[in-house]
Amino acid sequence: MKVIIVGGVAGGASCAARLRRLDEKAEILMVERGPYVSYANCGLPYHIGGVIEKEASLLVASEATFRGQFAVDCRTRCEVVGISAAKKTVELKNHATGAVTTEHYDKLVLSPGAAPIRPPLPGIDLPGIFSVRTVPDAREIREWIERGSSDSTGEHTSSGFPLDKPKRAVVVGGGYIGLEMAENLVHRGLEVTLVEMLDQVMAPLDPECARLVERHLEKHGVRLALGDAVAGFKQTASGSLEVLTKSGKAHPADIVILAIGVRPETGLAKMAGLEIGQRGGIRVAEQMRTSDPDIFAVGDAVEVKDFVTGEWSLIPLAGPANRQGRIVADVIAGRASRFRGTQGTSVIGVFGATVATTGANEKLLTRMGQKDFEKVYLFPNSHAGYYPGAKTIVLKVVFRKSDGRLLGAQALGLDGVEKRIDALAMAIQMGATVYDLEEAELCYAPPFGSAKDPVNFAGMVPADVLRGDMPICHWASVDDGFLLDVRNPPEIAVEQVAGAVNIPLPELRARLGELPRDREILIICRSAQRAYYATRILLQNGFKAKNISGGMLSRSMLGAK
Amino acid sequence: MKVIIVGGVAGGASCAARLRRLDEKAEILMVERGPYVSYANCGLPYHIGGVIEKEASLLVASEATFRGQFAVDCRTRCEVVGISAAKKTVELKNHATGAVTTEHYDKLVLSPGAAPIRPPLPGIDLPGIFSVRTVPDAREIREWIERGSSDSTGEHTSSGFPLDKPKRAVVVGGGYIGLEMAENLVHRGLEVTLVEMLDQVMAPLDPECARLVERHLEKHGVRLALGDAVAGFKQTASGSLEVLTKSGKAHPADIVILAIGVRPETGLAKMAGLEIGQRGGIRVAEQMRTSDPDIFAVGDAVEVKDFVTGEWSLIPLAGPANRQGRIVADVIAGRASRFRGTQGTSVIGVFGATVATTGANEKLLTRMGQKDFEKVYLFPNSHAGYYPGAKTIVLKVVFRKSDGRLLGAQALGLDGVEKRIDALAMAIQMGATVYDLEEAELCYAPPFGSAKDPVNFAGMVPADVLRGDMPICHWASVDDGFLLDVRNPPEIAVEQVAGAVNIPLPELRARLGELPRDREILIICRSAQRAYYATRILLQNGFKAKNISGGMLSRSMLGAK
Repeated sequence: MKVIIVGGVAGGASCAARLRRLDEKAEILMVERGPYVSYANCGLPYHIGGVIEKEASLLVASEATFRGQFAVDCRTRCEVVGISAAKKTVELKNHATGAVTTEHYDKLVLSPGAAPIRPPLPGIDLPGIFSVRTVPDAREIREWIERGSSDSTGEHTSSGFPLDKPKRAVVVGGGYIGLEMAENLVHRGLEVTLVEMLDQVMAPLDPECARLVERHLEKHGVRLALGDAVAGFKQTASGSLEVLTKSGKAHPADIVILAIGVRPETGLAKMAGLEIGQRGGIRVAEQMRTSDPDIFAVGDAVEVKDFVTGEWSLIPLAGPANRQGRIVADVIAGRASRFRGTQGTSVIGVFGATVATTGANEKLLTRMGQKDFEKVYLFPNSHAGYYPGAKTIVLKVVFRKSDGRLLGAQALGLDGVEKRIDALAMAIQMGATVYDLEEAELCYAPPFGSAKDPVNFAGMVPADVLRGDMPICHWASVDDGFLLDVRNPPEIAVEQVAGAVNIPLPELRARLGELPRDREILIICRSAQRAYYATRILLQNGFKAKNISGGMLSRSMLGAK
Repeated sequence: MKVIIVGGVAGGASCAARLRRLDEKAEILMVERGPYVSYANCGLPYHIGGVIEKEASLLVASEATFRGQFAVDCRTRCEVVGISAAKKTVELKNHATGAVTTEHYDKLVLSPGAAPIRPPLPGIDLPGIFSVRTVPDAREIREWIERGSSDSTGEHTSSGFPLDKPKRAVVVGGGYIGLEMAENLVHRGLEVTLVEMLDQVMAPLDPECARLVERHLEKHGVRLALGDAVAGFKQTASGSLEVLTKSGKAHPADIVILAIGVRPETGLAKMAGLEIGQRGGIRVAEQMRTSDPDIFAVGDAVEVKDFVTGEWSLIPLAGPANRQGRIVADVIAGRASRFRGTQGTSVIGVFGATVATTGANEKLLTRMGQKDFEKVYLFPNSHAGYYPGAKTIVLKVVFRKSDGRLLGAQALGLDGVEKRIDALAMAIQMGATVYDLEEAELCYAPPFGSAKDPVNFAGMVPADVLRGDMPICHWASVDDGFLLDVRNPPEIAVEQVAGAVNIPLPELRARLGELPRDREILIICRSAQRAYYATRILLQNGFKAKNISGGMLSRSMLGAK
C-alpha cells in the first residue's frame, strides 16, 4: 500500500508518524512544499519577538528524522502540482531541480493547511508587509526588524526605505496571531498599532470579554484601531509605509504584519474534484474522509463539526490537526477511529494576561437563533484570597437552561486561567452539566485554588439560577426594574449606579419596608455574591427579586473602553 | 425549625450560610469551641512561615458576619458538653462565663473536625512541642520561633529553655501538614529534620513517586528520617529538646511540630450513640445523615465513600467538607441533594515543586486485591519544549484494563502539575476512559501546553497498551527478558543498564538480525517514547516485544534515594 501525504506540518507529520507505527510495511511518501517539515508554527511570533531565540528550536522533527526513525520518504521543497483522483496519481514538482514526476497512491492524505489572507489591496506587495506562516516568513521579519542600527546614518536602500531600525509597526488583524505579534513587536521595542475590521479583538470571545483584552493591550502601549478595515498601503516620500483605512485614516508604519486570518488551502482538493463545504474548507466525514473515498484531509484546510453546536466550522488549531492526522492513520490502517469534532478550546498569553475559551459563546448561539441558554459572569480568585498573589479571574459561563448542560466558557486573568478552562473543556467533552461542576473535586491548597474552586462556582451559580434560587438578569435589561444596591457606603462612594437605592446587606432584613412589593427588584453588589444573599432574603419575604449577574464588575466590562 | 450546628469552620460554616439562604425563617445556632469561626486552617503553615503575614488574613468570616449577614446565632468559645438524641437537646458550655445551658434542636449538624494525633509518648507535653490546628496554635508556634534574639545573652527561662532563637526543628509526620510545616520552617531559617514512621512521605502517593518528593526535600535542606517512629521526647541539660525514635536515634530540636495525622473528633457522636465506621469516623449515609435521622455530620469527622474504589475513607480536606456542609443544608431544607463521595484530589506545594493526585493509587488498589488495573509512567513537558521554561512533569496514570476507565493519577513537577490533575479529576468524576483522554481538547499555545497535552498522553499511552499496540512491563519484572536499549550512544555513555544491548532506534530496522526471536525483548529508552516506536517495529516483524514503562526516567524514580 502506498500512501502519499501532502503537507508535512502538524496534521501531515502526525499522520505519517502514526501510520508508520501502525503499519511497518506501508510505503509512505510525505511531501512538503516548504523547506521544513514538522515545525512549530505556533512558535513563530515568539521567535520574531526573541523569546524563542534560536530558529532551530522551532524545528520539531527534521526530514532526516522522518527518513531515519520513521522510514518515511520525506521530501521538502516538493509541491503537488496536479492530482488525478480517477487515476489515483499526483504530479510532484521538485523545486530544487524543477523536475515534475508522477506518483501513484493508494491513499492520499491532504494536509495543506491554510494560507494567510492577503486581500488584493493597493500596495499589498510593498516591501515591509509580511505574513506570519512559515519559518522563512519569520526569518524575513526578523531581518527586517534588525536591519539598520541605532547609529545608522539614515541612508536609504535602493527600495527607498531607510536603513534605520523600524520603530513603528502596524498589525492588521486582532486574532491570535495578530495579538501575539503585537506583544512580540512591543517586546522588540516597536510602537504597535493594531487595525481590526471588527469592533472587537479575538473573535472567539464575546465582545464584553474582548473589551478587557483591548484595555489590557492599550495599557501595554498597543494602539487600537477597531471597526476599521484596511483600504490599502502606501509608501511615503521618506520611504516608510502608511496603512490606509476605509474610514480615511493613515497609520504610519516601518513594518506591517498581516494577520487578518487564514483561508483553507483548497486548491488541490478542488483539482481533485472534492466537495468543499459552505465555510470554504474541504468537507470530510467523521473519519476525515473526503468525498473521494481514497482521499483524506486534515488540519486547517478542512471544515469540522463543532462538538457543542453541531455547526460546520473552520478551526485552524494545532491540537485538532494532530488528532485528525492520527485518526486518518488509524483509518488507513483499518481501524474504526473517528473524529468527535472540535470544541474550539484555545488560549493566548497577552502581556502577562491569559485569555482562554472552550465551547460555544453567546455570540454564536445567538447567531444560530438558540434560545435555550443562559449566561453568568463570575469573578473568582485564582487561589485562596488569604494567600498572597491571588488574582481575579473573569469567567463567563454559558449553559443550557433546559438541562443544565455546560455549553461554553471564556476566562481572562493574570493567573490560573487556562487551568480552569481545561477542566471545563474536559467537562464539556464528557457532557457535564453545571450540577456536575458544583461537585467537582479539584486541587486545593492555598497557593493553588480555593476550597470552592472557580470551576465549582461555574457550576454553583448557574445551578442557583436553574433551581430558581437566584433569578438573574443582565445589565442590558435593567431599565424597568427597581435598583437595589446592597454594597456598603464606602463602596458606593467610589462608584454608584444612577437611580439605585442603597441598603447594605447586613441591614436588609430590618429595612424590607423600604422596598416596593409591586416591582421587580434588581439587586447590585460588587461581584453578585452579596446580591445573591439579598435575592434569597427578598424572595423568601415575598418580593420579586433578581440578581444582576456579575454586579459592578460585569458592568465595568460593558462600560466605555 | 431550630438547627444547631456544632463547629464553625469549613463544613459547619458552609452549612450555616447555605441553610440561611435556603430558609430565611430557620432558627440557626452555630457553636464553635474555639475563639474563631470560618478561619483558614489550610493557611496556618504559611502564616507560621511568614508567607501570610497577618493573622487577620486567616479569618474568612467573623462571628459578626454570621450574625449580621446571615442572621445566624453564632457563638464562639461555646462547647457542646452533652447531647441527648432522645430528648433532642444539647448542653452548651459558655467558656467565657462557665455557664451551661440546654438547647433543643430539630436538626443537629456535627462538624467537629479532626484532632491532631498526640500519642501518649513520654515527654509529649514538654514545652516546645506543638500541633498545628488552630489560629492560637499558629500564634504559639510563631511566638516560640520569634522569641529570643540574635544578640541574646543566652539566659535561660524558668522552664530551663534558652532564650536564643530556635535553630533546629523536628517535624514529626510526612503528610501534607508535615511537609508544609517543613518548608515554612526552612523559610524561617530553621534546620529541619522530618521524622516519619512510614518509609515514605505523602501517603496518598505511591512510594516511587514519594521518592521524588523526598529527594526534593533533601535538596532543599530537609533532613529525612523515614521508617522510624517517635518513641518519646526528652529535655536536655541545656534546655532544648530531643526527639527519640524507636531505632534509638535522638534528634536534637528547639521546636517540635507534631503532624502525625488527625483523628476524627467522635466524642459527641459517641455521646449521642451514633454509629461509628470501621475507619473511626462518624458513619453517614449519602445525605450525610448519621444513624440518627435528625443528626447530620460533615467534614473531617466523617467517613466518606471513595468515589473510585467504593471504600470507606477518611479524607480530611476542605473541599469535600464545604460540599458536605452545603448538602446538609439542602437536605434540611427538604432538597434531594446527596454527596457523591470523594476522589481524594489533593495538591501540595513543596519548595517550588507541585505534587498533586486524584483518584486511586496503585498501593490502595493492590491492598484491595484488585487485579484489573495497569499503570504507566509519563514524563511530558509542562508546555511546548521549544518555548523557554518547559519543565518535565512526572505523571503516573492508573487505569482499568477491562474497559479503560481512568482510576487515578499522580503528578509532580515545577510547572503545570495541578492543572493536569484538575483535568484528570474532572475526567474521573465524569467516568472518562483513557480513550476519552486521547481526544481531550485542552488549551494549547506554546507558553501553556503542547498540541498533545500531557492529559492527552495520559490517554494515548494507556490506550496504546489496551489496544495491544504497545505491550508494557515495569522495571520490577525485567529480570528474565532480553534488554534492548534504543537510545543513542552519547546517552548510553552517561548511564547504562547492565546487560542491555544497544541498537539506536534509527538503526533498528537494519539490525533486526541481531535480536533473538525466541525471547521476550524488553525495550529501554529515556522516557519510553522511542521504545514505543521500537516496540511497534519489533512486533510487526514477528518479535515478542515490550516497552519498559517510563524508560530510564522511571528507573531513576525507583533507584536509591
